[in-house]
Amino acid sequence: MEPRPRARELGIPLGRFRPGRWNAITDVEGVKVGHSTVIRGSGPLRPGKGPVRTGVTCILPGSRNVFAERVVGGGFVLNGAGEVSGMTQLLEWGLVETPIFLTNTLSVGAVGDAAVKWMVEQNPGIGLEHDVIIPLVGECDDSWLNDVAGRHVREQHVYEAIQTASDGPVAEGSVGGGTGMITCDFKAGIGTSSRKLPESMGGYTVGVLVMSNFGLMRQLRVGGLPLGEILEARYAGLPRRERSYGSIIAVLATDAPLATHQLDRLAKRAALGIGRVGSSAMHGSGEILVAFSTANRVPRESRKMVYRMKILLDARLDPLYEAVIEATEEAILNSLCAARDMDGVNGNLCRALPVEEVRELVARWQAAARSPPPAGPPRKE
Amino acid sequence: MEPRPRARELGIPLGRFRPGRWNAITDVEGVKVGHSTVIRGSGPLRPGKGPVRTGVTCILPGSRNVFAERVVGGGFVLNGAGEVSGMTQLLEWGLVETPIFLTNTLSVGAVGDAAVKWMVEQNPGIGLEHDVIIPLVGECDDSWLNDVAGRHVREQHVYEAIQTASDGPVAEGSVGGGTGMITCDFKAGIGTSSRKLPESMGGYTVGVLVMSNFGLMRQLRVGGLPLGEILEARYAGLPRRERSYGSIIAVLATDAPLATHQLDRLAKRAALGIGRVGSSAMHGSGEILVAFSTANRVPRESRKMVYRMKILLDARLDPLYEAVIEATEEAILNSLCAARDMDGVNGNLCRALPVEEVRELVARWQAAARSPPPAGPPRKE
Amino acid sequence: MEPRPRARELGIPLGRFRPGRWNAITDVEGVKVGHSTVIRGSGPLRPGKGPVRTGVTCILPGSRNVFAERVVGGGFVLNGAGEVSGMTQLLEWGLVETPIFLTNTLSVGAVGDAAVKWMVEQNPGIGLEHDVIIPLVGECDDSWLNDVAGRHVREQHVYEAIQTASDGPVAEGSVGGGTGMITCDFKAGIGTSSRKLPESMGGYTVGVLVMSNFGLMRQLRVGGLPLGEILEARYAGLPRRERSYGSIIAVLATDAPLATHQLDRLAKRAALGIGRVGSSAMHGSGEILVAFSTANRVPRESRKMVYRMKILLDARLDPLYEAVIEATEEAILNSLCAARDMDGVNGNLCRALPVEEVRELVARWQAAARSPPPAGPPRKE
Amino acid sequence: MEPRPRARELGIPLGRFRPGRWNAITDVEGVKVGHSTVIRGSGPLRPGKGPVRTGVTCILPGSRNVFAERVVGGGFVLNGAGEVSGMTQLLEWGLVETPIFLTNTLSVGAVGDAAVKWMVEQNPGIGLEHDVIIPLVGECDDSWLNDVAGRHVREQHVYEAIQTASDGPVAEGSVGGGTGMITCDFKAGIGTSSRKLPESMGGYTVGVLVMSNFGLMRQLRVGGLPLGEILEARYAGLPRRERSYGSIIAVLATDAPLATHQLDRLAKRAALGIGRVGSSAMHGSGEILVAFSTANRVPRESRKMVYRMKILLDARLDPLYEAVIEATEEAILNSLCAARDMDGVNGNLCRALPVEEVRELVARWQAAARSPPPAGPPRKE
Repeated sequence: MEPRPRARELGIPLGRFRPGRWNAITDVEGVKVGHSTVIRGSGPLRPGKGPVRTGVTCILPGSRNVFAERVVGGGFVLNGAGEVSGMTQLLEWGLVETPIFLTNTLSVGAVGDAAVKWMVEQNPGIGLEHDVIIPLVGECDDSWLNDVAGRHVREQHVYEAIQTASDGPVAEGSVGGGTGMITCDFKAGIGTSSRKLPESMGGYTVGVLVMSNFGLMRQLRVGGLPLGEILEARYAGLPRRERSYGSIIAVLATDAPLATHQLDRLAKRAALGIGRVGSSAMHGSGEILVAFSTANRVPRESRKMVYRMKILLDARLDPLYEAVIEATEEAILNSLCAARDMDGVNGNLCRALPVEEVRELVARWQAAARSPPPAGPPRKE
Repeated sequence: MEPRPRARELGIPLGRFRPGRWNAITDVEGVKVGHSTVIRGSGPLRPGKGPVRTGVTCILPGSRNVFAERVVGGGFVLNGAGEVSGMTQLLEWGLVETPIFLTNTLSVGAVGDAAVKWMVEQNPGIGLEHDVIIPLVGECDDSWLNDVAGRHVREQHVYEAIQTASDGPVAEGSVGGGTGMITCDFKAGIGTSSRKLPESMGGYTVGVLVMSNFGLMRQLRVGGLPLGEILEARYAGLPRRERSYGSIIAVLATDAPLATHQLDRLAKRAALGIGRVGSSAMHGSGEILVAFSTANRVPRESRKMVYRMKILLDARLDPLYEAVIEATEEAILNSLCAARDMDGVNGNLCRALPVEEVRELVARWQAAARSPPPAGPPRKE
Repeated sequence: MEPRPRARELGIPLGRFRPGRWNAITDVEGVKVGHSTVIRGSGPLRPGKGPVRTGVTCILPGSRNVFAERVVGGGFVLNGAGEVSGMTQLLEWGLVETPIFLTNTLSVGAVGDAAVKWMVEQNPGIGLEHDVIIPLVGECDDSWLNDVAGRHVREQHVYEAIQTASDGPVAEGSVGGGTGMITCDFKAGIGTSSRKLPESMGGYTVGVLVMSNFGLMRQLRVGGLPLGEILEARYAGLPRRERSYGSIIAVLATDAPLATHQLDRLAKRAALGIGRVGSSAMHGSGEILVAFSTANRVPRESRKMVYRMKILLDARLDPLYEAVIEATEEAILNSLCAARDMDGVNGNLCRALPVEEVRELVARWQAAARSPPPAGPPRKE
Repeated sequence: MEPRPRARELGIPLGRFRPGRWNAITDVEGVKVGHSTVIRGSGPLRPGKGPVRTGVTCILPGSRNVFAERVVGGGFVLNGAGEVSGMTQLLEWGLVETPIFLTNTLSVGAVGDAAVKWMVEQNPGIGLEHDVIIPLVGECDDSWLNDVAGRHVREQHVYEAIQTASDGPVAEGSVGGGTGMITCDFKAGIGTSSRKLPESMGGYTVGVLVMSNFGLMRQLRVGGLPLGEILEARYAGLPRRERSYGSIIAVLATDAPLATHQLDRLAKRAALGIGRVGSSAMHGSGEILVAFSTANRVPRESRKMVYRMKILLDARLDPLYEAVIEATEEAILNSLCAARDMDGVNGNLCRALPVEEVRELVARWQAAARSPPPAGPPRKE
């Protein structure tokens, strides 16, 4: 199969900052991503049997033993029609102390159960000399393609996602937790992107990984351009899911030294990035954002009273805000660009984004925008 | 065994409003409670084997098919060092659409997984013509007595808790999710209480059920009286857990017609009730409150645009606020009164509250308070 | 002077729903808007003297006596680097019980003081048989053009804004509280827009009024199109304010029967509308949203226990969400389109949006988008 | 006049930690408090004339120029039926950059206006090279004694409160903003208390100052003891206000190095302290808490990217939580102990707390509690 392009290869205007090496969340040093993809069967739904189009994605936030050396975290709920288990503790303590998992809605329990098992194996003191933990497990609903009620993600998939986690390039589209996900009526799933600030702005990297599953075709905006309306006219006849059961979970990583309330604020900006792609955060759609910074490690055990933390001055936050909006927008578009046509439950067929048409429409806009101003020098109105 | 007294049988002053028939959350019509208690083994911890002192409690919020006929819900997080899965959606939508489960921290995943299985069996349209669901599963850490990392609560226990749920009296103390729980260094667990407002205040019932697992002995206040300091002096030698891994989950039910933001506010008052028993909402303690009203049912499917909802006028809220504080305080004390001595992991022994001493101290206070004022009529200062 | 066009007269794609009669917040029946504009002096800043470029805008939410007959309200804080006094009570009670005022940052106190005086004159029972009130007063910082520290908005301006409030068309641009405000480095201020849903979606009207004062030129998106980058290149030489002291206050009105938690959610979607115009909700920018529904009146005094409230079913919310995003986007663009060049403190000159260039760029996009697809029928990728 | 005792002089059990030197918020180094008390006239209400029983209190948070050298702040809203202007920005930025003022509800605007004037005089760059500011002004409703609608707190009172602010002992009771305030139907107002942790717990000081105006007599708990019920029986005939328009604003200061999310959490514990005195956070009562730490100064202007902040390890928070609960409880009781009988509008007479009866009842409890256990050694149940 010919490789699918990533969003920026289509010429889409994607902001002022440059991506990191992989244009992925793994550009934040130490962050690793692994997927377990579960695809089985086709044709009519046989509850509990399939067809299966699902999986689980695991993000290791900066070190394999995030239990012992926790990272500072935060988050934001744009629309809470969804779940990230462990979110309450994340928002209270401002710490991430487990890997972050992404899966389908009805597998949150099974993934959490397996995550606990793995954590206890890695850290036998859990529940003994150490506190218990609450794993971070986010979800979207993949039921248009997947036998979601069959709860097909099990322990071995969670272990596979953890054990295959690596740095470097990240597989996108219909992989891991994103296997059965859909965005603006096109096939989507996992997408990622990053930005590296210029040294004058601190040189920090911010990376975003999304499991994207929201929106209607007519809402899609690509680099701002309202392409959805055009595609809607062209693809009116495509089958599509009818309930607004979308959602998106976004995970933000940065090496900028942010405090927890700064990470909460950063996560809010990712919500603006989701909005730019066209989301109206529909009633039934869960837009939940999890953020962490690898710059400060918070030890689980310490004899000290006080520690010294590097904190970015608030006055330096604005470039990070812009970077996270850009990277979120691009991560969602990458999830759309990477995914191919997929059929699933009852023969439901979800089409891939027609990337060549997107490329052409963007090119037309670029040509139009590059033309000289209509009437010479700027006029005084 | 001689039955343990409930808190009000000790003469403790527990407020101005009268309890309902059972002095339990089941006094709210339609609410049912079931427990599955898992007790196995004793002696040294053998990870994955036991000793096991845990379980799961299930609250059916007003009807067995809360999926189809949802009830209005809300909640509050006093300290978020804990988890109620599904909380994000509860706070967003203001609806309860699954039973509410209480278990140990590391079994949240397994209980959620089983809850999904049960919900799908009951409602085969989940994930097909109906939306998916996110079960409400709250937790506390019972690791001083229980092999928590063994994740001993499994599917059959969840089913048992659901299937044995009933109205009428509710078992308290070391049962269900409360089996291994401890409060102010005494054995506690599940407790419940209710209040029925006078007809002039609407005649509404409010019920509270807690899984109580917080605090230190010296903090304990009983009907306000700082008995903890006295008991601390007497029981200084008792073994006790050393980390502040407590927590408390409280579930509030009422038949008062409250909107979701009113339920959020009601839940906040339950937090004040927790505080009255001595909680300082310690860093590692998760105080999470879930509330629902059975007065308005919200259909999952409707062809209507608008529905008419009865709403209590805000000016009538204050008696409910007081009632929920009283019932929360009493529910916690009931969990302490009902529980007996229990040993667990590594022979750890948690003592029951010395109820006769409490009775005596309360009686002394009542006698002192009943004495005539020191100097005849109130003096002008 | 030739009249300035409104945004939709420029051909900008502004969504799927149609505006109401005036394309203004006053399309929601009963809502009235009044302005008091204070412009005095020019040249160097003489603190306390001028130049003055400021004012106050007043929104009457559905009836002149909103104190006695309150409306249901809600809100959201996207970035809290700003102030709407009374916001805490609005979010707690879910009620609007005073007019809503918009002014400059350092005049919030004076406007609140005058608002209290006016409220007491209208309702002499305040502080006697009735509760006291906390007026809703929002602000942005107009200090690049205005002697903000001079606190030039005084009692008579507040009274003028109230007394001139009317239904029908609303003056936009450099009027009232928006007199000295700037958006994406162009002159802006007050803008408004509305949407009327089709009858099949309930036929509800939603109106938005903004005091818009945020962003940088390069961030500006117009109907999604990233025109800011193009304008930035052309207008690089323009003087502009250097600190990110922007902000935007948006007031949403609707006749849809929404409960307070639904209005909170609606307000969140207005934040997405702000994001679509290019906002990154910069650190120093206060994005605060106030929402109310005129459909249910909540009496201050009642002998009843319960009232019956019409509530829109959650499943019907999505069109309102889209409508409010569209109307927010258009209200901001209207504030930009209406405002003309303005000079102020120390000769600072803020240029108007070059509307003819916007018109031309939008037309080019429309032409490009209307062209037939590049390769005939949609291709299978 | 004979001096009134402070709460601990009555023998009330007030916790395990010791107060600082002054048992006042001023025990936190650098914190200063000033009052302006406005008392004029008596007899029938003549609107706008009096009787006047009000004032304003000013807390300088650590240095006179908190604008240039800001302190880390946070807060919590227990019940939002009240106002602290500037709260939105405080919760967003986590910084206190103005003094904190406490006054009556209808004077918030006037106090804010005067505070801005004073801030601009002290810092002429405001609105020029510096950002504008939003002063922190909290309120309670004193209308049972005061002509609140007359808005009698004006500019000179604000200046007086600032200019008389000092360290050392703090006047309590019917002074400053607390002049006309009432708690549990007894005269109250301003109260303060502090705790100093042992060196082994960091040696930090936490101070609380309240403007206390909440609750009903029967709700009052003193050191936990439910004295309100006893006093209610004795003082049933006293005139009292009939609407539940109470409120309490609490200001917490500490020299412990806390981050903003830690201060938010600390403020939540002060809410538990309010609850211990008997508050049910009634519908119409505004319980708002503002917290700040003097340990880290955040410069307004800096050329740096990152700063190094000392942060208390979360595991060390619990003693501070307990200390703040204790100090809040004591501060409220101090406001009650210090205030004397006061008459006001229309001859309304609010009685002082009968401190000798409180002393006697507490002594009886202490005697009862000190008696030996009822049955010799602790019995095994």
